[in-house]
Amino acid sequence: MQKAPILYDYFRSSAAYRVRIGLNLKGVAYEKHTVSLIDGEQKGDAYRALNPQGLVPALKVAGHPLMTQSLAILDWLDATYPDPSFLPGDKDERAHVLSMATMIACDIHPLNNLRVLKYLKGPLGVSEAAKDEWYRHWIAEGFEALEKVAQPHAGAYLYGDTPTLADICLIPQLYNARRFSVSVANYPTLRRADETASGNHAFADAHPDLQEAL
Amino acid sequence: MQKAPILYDYFRSSAAYRVRIGLNLKGVAYEKHTVSLIDGEQKGDAYRALNPQGLVPALKVAGHPLMTQSLAILDWLDATYPDPSFLPGDKDERAHVLSMATMIACDIHPLNNLRVLKYLKGPLGVSEAAKDEWYRHWIAEGFEALEKVAQPHAGAYLYGDTPTLADICLIPQLYNARRFSVSVANYPTLRRADETASGNHAFADAHPDLQEAL
Repeated sequence: MQKAPILYDYFRSSAAYRVRIGLNLKGVAYEKHTVSLIDGEQKGDAYRALNPQGLVPALKVAGHPLMTQSLAILDWLDATYPDPSFLPGDKDERAHVLSMATMIACDIHPLNNLRVLKYLKGPLGVSEAAKDEWYRHWIAEGFEALEKVAQPHAGAYLYGDTPTLADICLIPQLYNARRFSVSVANYPTLRRADETASGNHAFADAHPDLQEAL
Repeated sequence: MQKAPILYDYFRSSAAYRVRIGLNLKGVAYEKHTVSLIDGEQKGDAYRALNPQGLVPALKVAGHPLMTQSLAILDWLDATYPDPSFLPGDKDERAHVLSMATMIACDIHPLNNLRVLKYLKGPLGVSEAAKDEWYRHWIAEGFEALEKVAQPHAGAYLYGDTPTLADICLIPQLYNARRFSVSVANYPTLRRADETASGNHAFADAHPDLQEAL
């Protein structure tokens, strides 16, 4: 029997959450190896020997090199398990979905993840209130644009009625926004996708609250 | 005659620089429409009506919707003009190259671009020295990891001897690092790719110094 892939995971990591959703959407059973970000385990020698960047997620599939970076892992999963696809077949539609996904993965999430918030509080000595406003600022700027960009082609999900890479990136970002008490009231298209996804087991089962407690 | 694609461009934007390299590698002639980031033109109504996110680059190809987000545009170019490809055909190698590209595009560049540096100096009141240290910190952390990840499979470029998406992301980031006087001495693999690229017209012609003065 083929060994199940091992996901190097942390329950609250948005990037790991994306990969959990992706694995679930493809129906790939996997084992979780928790890397505790709160204990700094990702920066330890043992994990760095596996992934020099010291970030989660990473995915080890038997017979393949360790993979890192959520978007690269999701691309590999999509090539390996083509059905259901994370991206539309038409190349203009694909560019639209990829653009929405990277609006989140490149322009929102990197500014608001743990290592950055720690740098603001530590070396920069930013107050808790100013840090929260920083968080809110990038969410608001990003979600406002995403709402406009998504609207014309959205359905039950961000693009049409089936989940795409854009939803895989959106749902963890919405979870994060709520955790920091950022209102998402002004983004009806994003909220609709979130509501749809909450009824889809692939998304629901990947939710941080359902991962093993640490 | 088919109209040439229009690139909404700014000479110093790393993301726009990536797309200039990509268009050149594919041998696609294009027209440039400069959006002056220094004058805030990207946030003006005229440009926002085209691209609600108010960022460069954007690419308009006749008969296709406007495209935004450099990685989405590069993916579209790669699908439309398959030769030479930006990514290896083998899916494990492809994941490796995509991982390196997103280490730059998701984990370095978003923290160091103009809108973020402006927020540090403005709302957060961070000193010039602390801002420069922030810049240096994310470059050093990212490049150290990238150097280790790239080394085993690097050739004249980051992956083998032909340019990939990883180099398309690296070269603008190296340009930026040097502009902020960040040493890249400790990253021989990155410097070798940079040296190779400097002798390749597709990269050299995309250099910010060769774009129209503003």
